[in-house]
Amino acid sequence: MIKVYLDHNATTPVAASIIDVLPELAQAWGNPSSIHWGGRQPKNLLRDARKALAQAIQVSPLEIIFTSGGSESNNTALRGVLEFYQTTKFLSKEQKNRTHFMCSAVEHPSVMRTMLHLRDIGARVDIIPVDRQGSIDMDFYESHLCAETALVSVMLANNETGTLFPIREMAAKAHAAGALFHTDCVQAFGKIPLNLKELNVDLASFSGHKFYALKGSGFLYAKKGISFVPLVLGGGQERHRRGGTENTLGIACMGHMAEKIQELTAKNLELAKLRDHMEERIKNEIRDVLVTAAEGRRLPNTSSLVLAGVDGETLLMSLDIKGYAVSTGAACSSGNPEPSPVLLSMGLSRQEAQSSLRLSLGWGNSLKEINEFVETLKAVVQRLRSLTEEDDEVHHV
Amino acid sequence: MIKVYLDHNATTPVAASIIDVLPELAQAWGNPSSIHWGGRQPKNLLRDARKALAQAIQVSPLEIIFTSGGSESNNTALRGVLEFYQTTKFLSKEQKNRTHFMCSAVEHPSVMRTMLHLRDIGARVDIIPVDRQGSIDMDFYESHLCAETALVSVMLANNETGTLFPIREMAAKAHAAGALFHTDCVQAFGKIPLNLKELNVDLASFSGHKFYALKGSGFLYAKKGISFVPLVLGGGQERHRRGGTENTLGIACMGHMAEKIQELTAKNLELAKLRDHMEERIKNEIRDVLVTAAEGRRLPNTSSLVLAGVDGETLLMSLDIKGYAVSTGAACSSGNPEPSPVLLSMGLSRQEAQSSLRLSLGWGNSLKEINEFVETLKAVVQRLRSLTEEDDEVHHV
Repeated sequence: MIKVYLDHNATTPVAASIIDVLPELAQAWGNPSSIHWGGRQPKNLLRDARKALAQAIQVSPLEIIFTSGGSESNNTALRGVLEFYQTTKFLSKEQKNRTHFMCSAVEHPSVMRTMLHLRDIGARVDIIPVDRQGSIDMDFYESHLCAETALVSVMLANNETGTLFPIREMAAKAHAAGALFHTDCVQAFGKIPLNLKELNVDLASFSGHKFYALKGSGFLYAKKGISFVPLVLGGGQERHRRGGTENTLGIACMGHMAEKIQELTAKNLELAKLRDHMEERIKNEIRDVLVTAAEGRRLPNTSSLVLAGVDGETLLMSLDIKGYAVSTGAACSSGNPEPSPVLLSMGLSRQEAQSSLRLSLGWGNSLKEINEFVETLKAVVQRLRSLTEEDDEVHHV
Repeated sequence: MIKVYLDHNATTPVAASIIDVLPELAQAWGNPSSIHWGGRQPKNLLRDARKALAQAIQVSPLEIIFTSGGSESNNTALRGVLEFYQTTKFLSKEQKNRTHFMCSAVEHPSVMRTMLHLRDIGARVDIIPVDRQGSIDMDFYESHLCAETALVSVMLANNETGTLFPIREMAAKAHAAGALFHTDCVQAFGKIPLNLKELNVDLASFSGHKFYALKGSGFLYAKKGISFVPLVLGGGQERHRRGGTENTLGIACMGHMAEKIQELTAKNLELAKLRDHMEERIKNEIRDVLVTAAEGRRLPNTSSLVLAGVDGETLLMSLDIKGYAVSTGAACSSGNPEPSPVLLSMGLSRQEAQSSLRLSLGWGNSLKEINEFVETLKAVVQRLRSLTEEDDEVHHV
């Protein structure tokens, strides 16, 4: 049976070049904190990976903090800043008052749920609306930024629609109000060119398994001078910003991919052509299809569709039987019968959100695969719609 | 050059049988939350590992929560319980008042520093003293347990001295006071037989790289019905107890080792003979050596020595040159010029703590290696002592 993977925003295959070097990398099993021979090789792996990743996003190696992934990075940035203001002695009264947080309505659950938790532990939180085209409400944003704002968190690219947000502009406004700016770069890194210095954010999150490295690895960029309470307290690892023996294998694999980041980004940028071709064919050959947020700037690989009258979950399973891996929304909420909160907050109806299909292309997808996929999608959608229409007829008798 | 590793409490080599299967396991790269074909293999890996680990500690699979390691597990248990009492609505007044925490004076920094942080965010914390022989002050413990105690955290085995604490007895006392009990099992698992149901603790922490699996993997045991606020909030993974895409490779490797846990534990128990032989020879053949906490119950593989008049750091580096990997204390504080806080809190003087040497044996260490090591240690200690004595003579002129 064919197996075509069109769900690269959920996770990416581990790069073949990584699989080849895994056994060798795992031989550097020492504790990087050990000062005897056992520590030297893993310490070098950490140093090299830190340097390569820093270079890939145009920052200094000391601004990279290794974590267990994007979720931990997001939790660290948000909780860490609130707890810093709450627990640090000798802050000015103005600083102590910074307990206001903001994020967009379409953040990943690791930001959204953390924001709700911050509310429970003393923060005031405002959610910035986003419309059907993925535009963020800048008036709302500007009017809610205030002298109490501690931090604003807006993702660089949305995981479900691919929408790109104007982070550089938003960060500048946050800074003008004396607030910090965090951006979740998990979906953007490796798909579009990234220059963190130019974006001028204070904190940014990254996840290894979204750029062909291993699950359980990630990093947080923290601009020099930015203070936060570590999420994982412990030994002095990561210059006292993240305790716990480092995931040397996962980190080395991220470093391996960082060396190829230009190649990967170029490849992903090219995917826009394939994605656009796919969307054109789908819109032309299947009736009643909407592309969500198509008018705004988007990631080159992502397509979020609404297929009227088709249940997304049923569509996913029908395509799976044919060998196509797709999703209805974020993987981390798969199996949840509720429609995507991201699509709902963009103003889609429940019915629309329940008819959503996310296609996210990646390294390896070919024109032939995409053309075959469109043929299969056409047939499946036609069949599902005809079943629903029969149902409707029965009900209308 | 020979390379002999005597620092297994810092980290263990990755098992050869794991290195062999890494490439194959990494091929199961899908997101376990995906409901299409890509999710099935990794989901099975998680399920099998969870089952094997649960069996290895005699609990139910649903009581296992995968984390990024021992430090995250410790942070989760401690912060999570305080935050649960602080933020959950509809708790009784008696429950809301549970803001008192206790731990032993010799906990790992991931417990100790978290306790200090809990103090910053509203908890009252008491530290239970431990004496030179590793005995914990049960009078202090019992007299400080009260109706406000939320949680007590005492490690099963100390990482520096190997001291085993009476966890079952201490947990029973905590429960009698209505408090929860957490134990850091990071150093114990795989070294002594472990039955969590029998210990009857509520929460327990484990780290993959201490039992020949990968760094960056670990788990938290949480007894059925125990509530806590997750440290990493995000998607619904781990039944909403730990967000973030699962580290499938790391988890599968822990599961691999769980299948061999009886073999590993038996091997470690046998190491007691080798360790005792080593200590006997050192005590007989090198003057002015103390074995810390030798009178109490200890891990079978650990030996913590004080070699009067010898600087531990210099000794470590001299032994490293000869190919022997040893440590002065915990690896995570290596390079820190301060003497071990664990040894100081046990009542050793600064001078004694600065003359400490930790030897921790493991799978693969042989009698021949240990005998050769003792010969080398004798020669190195003699040389270092003669240098110090010469120095002393110079200074006394």
